[in-house]
Parts: sequence; structure tokens; C-alpha cells
Amino acid sequence: MDVRGVHHVALAVEDLDQAIDTYVRFFGAEVEERARIEEQGVDAVYLRVGEGRLELVSPLDPDTPVGRFLARRGPGMHHVAFEVDDVGEAVAMLNRSGANVLEPAPRRGFGGHQVAFVHPESLRGVLAEVVGG
Amino acid sequence: MDVRGVHHVALAVEDLDQAIDTYVRFFGAEVEERARIEEQGVDAVYLRVGEGRLELVSPLDPDTPVGRFLARRGPGMHHVAFEVDDVGEAVAMLNRSGANVLEPAPRRGFGGHQVAFVHPESLRGVLAEVVGG
Repeated sequence: MDVRGVHHVALAVEDLDQAIDTYVRFFGAEVEERARIEEQGVDAVYLRVGEGRLELVSPLDPDTPVGRFLARRGPGMHHVAFEVDDVGEAVAMLNRSGANVLEPAPRRGFGGHQVAFVHPESLRGVLAEVVGG
Repeated sequence: MDVRGVHHVALAVEDLDQAIDTYVRFFGAEVEERARIEEQGVDAVYLRVGEGRLELVSPLDPDTPVGRFLARRGPGMHHVAFEVDDVGEAVAMLNRSGANVLEPAPRRGFGGHQVAFVHPESLRGVLAEVVGG
């Protein structure tokens, strides 16, 4: 697979505004984009940290994937996203290689990107996203 | 602070070689550097994934920080490292801003870089590293 690099590192947080303040204060982060994503049950923000990018997600309700993650593990690192040229090709290749891809086909994610997720059982406990540039 | 970007995303793994194989197979990762770091009690490898970088760490003994992390949480994302121009300046600035920096001064880390770590209690549950370029 032709991975360009790490698109973002996602953090699950309890309070989005407090978490933004933390990364602005300590690392000079800058808000790039913010949105409510109803179908995933989160408020999300992209923060630029130099040329890097963090995604902060906070649940709209405890009974959502990120809400359950927080209840189970507490706030912290949630997933890592790899940027690829073609998410459809990446999904096909991951499936051929035996990875457990959570979506049958790429879907539209935060920022309008095409995305798909790979189950942690395929990646040594790490939830990964592939995201189109 | 002048952060250049994300230097690496670190994953705690049980078996280093099996984990390397996983990221080579699914994401075309390439081994950049590998070393035993006795003072941290880990075998470590840097993997390039496009322009991004993963660090895989596996404990030399259960009674090490990474060994205890695995026992408590299982394999998965361990920390995120931000690249800065001057780690000494970054540590001074983090201390002035009230962050809990784990080292009193930068120390030599994997790959010969100057590094320091910030406690997760300061960063919404995320262990972060600042690393010199």
C-alpha cells in the first residue's frame, strides 16, 4: 500500500474545549476545523501542531463508541490515521491481506475525507484509519 | 513552543518481530532503526510509513514501565512524540506553563535524540514526548 504518512493522531477526550486549551497552551496547537459528526456521535476538531495534526473527539452521549471507550479506558490516544492516495484501493488491499476492515467500503468522514477503519485485532491492539488526502 | 510536527507515534507490543511484520504487511512500513535500550527496559524499532514514523517498543521484562503498561492495558498506542528545535527550551517552557515533565532535564533517547516526557495527567490522559530533530 502506498501510505503517504500519518494524517492525524486521534485522542478521545471528555471536554473538547478544555482539551483544545491544553494542546494550545502546551504545544501551540491551532484549530484547523471543527464539526459535530452526528452519525459517529462525536464533536471533533482537527488541531495543527506544526506540520502534524491531532484529532480530538468527545462523545455526544455515553452510549456511543467513543463514549464507551472513555468509560472503559478513560481519556487518551484513540486511533492513528494513515493518509493514502486511494482509500478504495487501500481497503481492497487490506482485505486481501487478511485485515479486519470495519467498513465494507470507504465512507465520508470528518473534513469530507474518504475513510475506513481497521480493527485493533488486526494491528496489535491499535485502531487505525486510512484516510484520503 | 515551536513544534515542527509529530516525530513518531509509539505502540507498545508483546512481540517486536511479529508486530514489525504486521505493519510491513498491511502498511508497507520499513525498518529505519532498531536498538535495545537497557535503561528503559525495551527493544525498540523505528518504522517509516511513508513520511510518517511509528516506534514499536516491547519490554525486556514484565517489571518495566512498558511491561506494566502491557499488563494493565494490553498492547496498543503508548505515546505521541512532538519534534521540537530545542528540547531544553521546550522543557523549560512546559514547566513554566505548569506541565508535569517527567525528567528534570532532557536525556538521550532512542536514535540519539534529546528527549523528555510529559505526564498524561497534564495532557488529558496522553503520554507525550518532546524530541529533538
